[in-house]
Amino acid sequence: MQKILLLLLTCVFTAQLQAQTLTSPDKNFTFKFELKEKGVPSYQLTYKKKPVIKSSTLGIETKDVASFLDGFTVTKTEVQSVNDTWEPVLGEQKTIRNNYNELLVTLTQKAQKDRILRIRFRLFNDGLGFRYEFPKQKELNYFVIKEEQTQFNLAGDHKIFWIPGDYDTNEYPYTTSKVSEIPGLQKKATVQITAQTPIKEPSVQTPSMMKSSDGLYINIHEAALINYPAMHLEVDAKGLRMKSHLVPDAVGNKGYMQTDAQTPWRTIIVSDKATDILASKLILNLNEPTKYKDVSWIKPVKYIGVWWEYFVAGKSTWAYGTENNVKLDQDFSKLTPNNRHGATTQNVKRHIDFAAEHGFDAVLVEGWNIGWEDWIGNWKENVFDFTTPYPDFDVKELQRYAASKKVKIMMHHETSASATNYERRLHPAFQFMVDNGYNAVKTGYVGQIIPRGEHHDGQWMVNHYIHVANTAADYKIMVNSHEAVRPTGLNRTFPNWIAQESARGTEFEAMGGLAPEHTTILPFTRLMGGPMDYTPGIFQTDLSIYGTNNKQRVNTTLVKQLAYYVTMYSPLQMAADLPENYLRFPDAFQFIKDVAVDWDDTYGLEAEPGDYVTTARKAKGKDEWYVGGVTDENPRTATVNLSFLPKGKQYIATIYADGADASYDKKPQSYTVKKVVVTPNSVIKQKLASSGGLAISIKEGSKKEVKDLPKL
Amino acid sequence: MQKILLLLLTCVFTAQLQAQTLTSPDKNFTFKFELKEKGVPSYQLTYKKKPVIKSSTLGIETKDVASFLDGFTVTKTEVQSVNDTWEPVLGEQKTIRNNYNELLVTLTQKAQKDRILRIRFRLFNDGLGFRYEFPKQKELNYFVIKEEQTQFNLAGDHKIFWIPGDYDTNEYPYTTSKVSEIPGLQKKATVQITAQTPIKEPSVQTPSMMKSSDGLYINIHEAALINYPAMHLEVDAKGLRMKSHLVPDAVGNKGYMQTDAQTPWRTIIVSDKATDILASKLILNLNEPTKYKDVSWIKPVKYIGVWWEYFVAGKSTWAYGTENNVKLDQDFSKLTPNNRHGATTQNVKRHIDFAAEHGFDAVLVEGWNIGWEDWIGNWKENVFDFTTPYPDFDVKELQRYAASKKVKIMMHHETSASATNYERRLHPAFQFMVDNGYNAVKTGYVGQIIPRGEHHDGQWMVNHYIHVANTAADYKIMVNSHEAVRPTGLNRTFPNWIAQESARGTEFEAMGGLAPEHTTILPFTRLMGGPMDYTPGIFQTDLSIYGTNNKQRVNTTLVKQLAYYVTMYSPLQMAADLPENYLRFPDAFQFIKDVAVDWDDTYGLEAEPGDYVTTARKAKGKDEWYVGGVTDENPRTATVNLSFLPKGKQYIATIYADGADASYDKKPQSYTVKKVVVTPNSVIKQKLASSGGLAISIKEGSKKEVKDLPKL
Repeated sequence: MQKILLLLLTCVFTAQLQAQTLTSPDKNFTFKFELKEKGVPSYQLTYKKKPVIKSSTLGIETKDVASFLDGFTVTKTEVQSVNDTWEPVLGEQKTIRNNYNELLVTLTQKAQKDRILRIRFRLFNDGLGFRYEFPKQKELNYFVIKEEQTQFNLAGDHKIFWIPGDYDTNEYPYTTSKVSEIPGLQKKATVQITAQTPIKEPSVQTPSMMKSSDGLYINIHEAALINYPAMHLEVDAKGLRMKSHLVPDAVGNKGYMQTDAQTPWRTIIVSDKATDILASKLILNLNEPTKYKDVSWIKPVKYIGVWWEYFVAGKSTWAYGTENNVKLDQDFSKLTPNNRHGATTQNVKRHIDFAAEHGFDAVLVEGWNIGWEDWIGNWKENVFDFTTPYPDFDVKELQRYAASKKVKIMMHHETSASATNYERRLHPAFQFMVDNGYNAVKTGYVGQIIPRGEHHDGQWMVNHYIHVANTAADYKIMVNSHEAVRPTGLNRTFPNWIAQESARGTEFEAMGGLAPEHTTILPFTRLMGGPMDYTPGIFQTDLSIYGTNNKQRVNTTLVKQLAYYVTMYSPLQMAADLPENYLRFPDAFQFIKDVAVDWDDTYGLEAEPGDYVTTARKAKGKDEWYVGGVTDENPRTATVNLSFLPKGKQYIATIYADGADASYDKKPQSYTVKKVVVTPNSVIKQKLASSGGLAISIKEGSKKEVKDLPKL
Repeated sequence: MQKILLLLLTCVFTAQLQAQTLTSPDKNFTFKFELKEKGVPSYQLTYKKKPVIKSSTLGIETKDVASFLDGFTVTKTEVQSVNDTWEPVLGEQKTIRNNYNELLVTLTQKAQKDRILRIRFRLFNDGLGFRYEFPKQKELNYFVIKEEQTQFNLAGDHKIFWIPGDYDTNEYPYTTSKVSEIPGLQKKATVQITAQTPIKEPSVQTPSMMKSSDGLYINIHEAALINYPAMHLEVDAKGLRMKSHLVPDAVGNKGYMQTDAQTPWRTIIVSDKATDILASKLILNLNEPTKYKDVSWIKPVKYIGVWWEYFVAGKSTWAYGTENNVKLDQDFSKLTPNNRHGATTQNVKRHIDFAAEHGFDAVLVEGWNIGWEDWIGNWKENVFDFTTPYPDFDVKELQRYAASKKVKIMMHHETSASATNYERRLHPAFQFMVDNGYNAVKTGYVGQIIPRGEHHDGQWMVNHYIHVANTAADYKIMVNSHEAVRPTGLNRTFPNWIAQESARGTEFEAMGGLAPEHTTILPFTRLMGGPMDYTPGIFQTDLSIYGTNNKQRVNTTLVKQLAYYVTMYSPLQMAADLPENYLRFPDAFQFIKDVAVDWDDTYGLEAEPGDYVTTARKAKGKDEWYVGGVTDENPRTATVNLSFLPKGKQYIATIYADGADASYDKKPQSYTVKKVVVTPNSVIKQKLASSGGLAISIKEGSKKEVKDLPKL
């Protein structure tokens, strides 16, 4: 009798546990976890009483052990609240608040010998993060994931800014449509890109930015992608449901897990204000603090490069020789020079001079090392050695010269996606950097991955990028990766992984052009995961001046390029244009020279994905502020409310604006620069041209300046 | 008119070129190359007028460019003869003769824009080697191999000693049958082995040893396997044809080629004397000389190890802890010790003492580093770090202790076939060895390969093993690889790749036992490619003494184990038994202590694959000779003709023989040791027991010894 009673009590207790709710610290979010029929876990999320995610199931399908899909009972729930702050090494804010309520649900599969799965939910004021956790337990040591079955059941047919799902590239242009329209547009959206593997099912990549018809901004992504494949989203256009789709490995498996293990965090950032999405630090908060003991060597970088000339000038090349078949052990000094090689000692010195004169930290030099003659398209493993310069690139002399000018040369490690080759040579490559005074490397992964059959976004490559960043830290080297998996806030944990490309960047302005709206979308998508090396700063936007019937055009005004230094956050920023183009516009160039790349604080002034973004930031450790504003193809008037300035002082604002007759396609280089006196009460209203921009620098002025300059 | 004449002349010239013959320097071999219908290349080979290879086609099937199969015309033929000698760093002979006639055929595919393929044939007195060469040319830079289509059209239904084709392992027991019987026996021959991928078609591995009914011994293998997958042989049992079958990569491709490129050499070694097969240096001759500038640090190694106790004693283990789920970043000193760990400081010191006392160069220690608790079966990538010892293994103290006793500790790098993990850690791992006084490493590749989808015998792994050997050379480290692709004479080019396992070795005597004939076959198969770390020397062959109902038995007599040090060539030889077992048989142990492992010369005295082998060798730089003889399950009388001894002197021969009542299964430890005086005219006739052996050491004796000892 006593035993029966005990069982009954347990049942009651269990029944109570099957549904759990949670609210965000500010009460705007309500979250509910519950077990559905057959013990299937599910969750739902509302914001200000509007549904964001309707009841959606959770689970992991496995290959070699029983799946984590159903048959669960809730055996324990734990809640906790956290409210603290932390300081990033480099960032948009000096201090980041980490404030959430957490629900940790322990689920038991009785039919699997009481095997346990935990799901941890963290509800912030800016959204939800959750992950699966697989505790070490007798019945679970190793398993292989067939697919993650996490649903995102949408509350409506939202507007979505999307790129198609692909295992190997995120360099697609954005398509804007309704969720229901995705399948019909998928083919058109999947433009040709080097080394692409589009997902067969209708699918989109994350960060996936949506806007509901009732005014909610919803962003789905992930945080802390470690030892797991990237998550793309399959789209059920009729059911308005999204579902996780992991990137497979060479044999079709999706993830190799060993307990204790956990998935990355799945993130849903929500607000009724678009600027709140941009301000969210939820993804960084869900990443682990760095374990690096010394981070003093990690510094922001403003740089120029021997780079844009490869895309536009038509006069220089990465390759030294005319051959299209080279091997690393041959004597490259015996190649026939193509006489167009860009990374010559002389050309690099010219760039070092320019960098030194205008206050840049570094000069990126691509094409310095042997192997570029046949680096792409051959699935070639031993493609670069990362330590042997071309005969016309004098490493020692350039090291000496750069050091004498207090400029760093930025190393370039294009891997051609031959990751195995890079790993084989990683230690010698980094030692070479240390021996020759390099402190930062731009890595590249153009092409089909080696190990053959693996993908850019698969678990193995995810681990590779982290291995590179981690190993680089041992040598005090900063990493700026291109063509890697898109970021998920790991720059918190690996702060020397200072920036990434991982999206369609400025180089595509020279290869077909970017839509004027592109950079009003990127802050809501790609940049949600971390800093982007967008390589802005193109002043000569009409590329026809480079001749040879080049009708290509960078689809912005000159001032829009200035604005990017503020709207496109990165602690590593390039001034990508040719030095001679900057010298033609010294007053506009002054903004690039002045603008900070590391910040005490950030103020989202105005934003609408696909339309416009206006952002202000305070320079790290300085009483200087910078404002950037961009618009899509539609001219508009930006409103810059300077209330973020400290009270009680007057400041000098230098306003870089599109000329009255400016437009990106007709008159991109029409701009004005004027100085005015402003106060925290000032509101600057400034017209932006079609695909135009606005850039403002604000400093304390001398008494004389304040007296002499006009008031706003 | 003049033009027509020219064309006619060319035609005649071309027609003449379509068939070419070649003879070996001693005229025993005749070789013919000809183009068959549709311009298909073919070859045939005879030995002393007996057909060895009937007309067989040659070609390479490609994936992305037109295949190299047909449509050829012969546009050039070149012949040359070479007769010189060279000295291996370590070897069976101090000097090796390299004597061949060569035919280089240039084939042109007119339909492929005059694309060129070359096939180079070298005809030695011991057989044929040929390879495909792809010169650098306008129409050919990169291509992918779908399959190599090299035929070996046999002249009869030969007896063959074979193991089944497999992409991942060569650790099969041998099956002896007719070629025509292979398909029916394939299933039975494919016994279970960790991480195996049997080829679906009836197939065998190389070296493939055959004997024709008219008394020819024929061995097919390959030489200089570099940047190419291993070749297995598909068997057409009805047509009595074999055909190359290359090992695929993760996506099913077989080879990635960049011109200039060539395949490994395909080798056909032939004689009517079995001992000639063993004496052949054709495979070494077809490998390139080493490029290492300094080889003084490459030295022969006689070693013992903390190893056999893991297989037999049941008291010790590689693993330290009881757990079956560990991660490299955890604190292993907090594991629960299983109290059976073998690689303890104390146990290793005991082995160092023994090695020092008995003149061994080194002590192999397996299980010294963290990660053994769950190292196998999980396809785990970060399985070992190669630099962190278990808490009970004191690296520094053992380094000091070993150095004080002038003994080296041999490093052990089991990779669990996680080659990517090994490559990531290779530089730190080798630096750790240098820092701690190790000069040799035993590597292991047990398990499924990572990069996942790759195979032990594929092109990627072939390159991996060479990368390891080459990198090891930078650190002056010798490599002894286990579970790698079988050797192809690369120890000439990479002489620090001192030995390999790559066959079913002594460890299997503790896991089911080896057939008595096994080691009469290995010299004709596995050892044709290079030295084998067979790990002989088991004195305690009845393993039941280790208790726990162990009915396992090493299927040899004690003396047969002694004979292996001569019959199984390797410059790195283990005395694999437990030290205490050697102390029980000090007179027999003396042979192991005495026997050389590097040689001035080698004399094949008697051999028949599957039945017996008797070999004599002269120690490098010493007037000492050692003889080893083994037999299969059949007792026999070995005949040892000492005519190889220098004339005019008397020598002391110490003869280690099976006892009159000895047999491997009843009385394996019955043996006699006797000394006699011998001369070059002496012929020792000695009975070998069932699976028995014979070992003889011969030295110059003192006058007194010569006087006192009996004459033979």
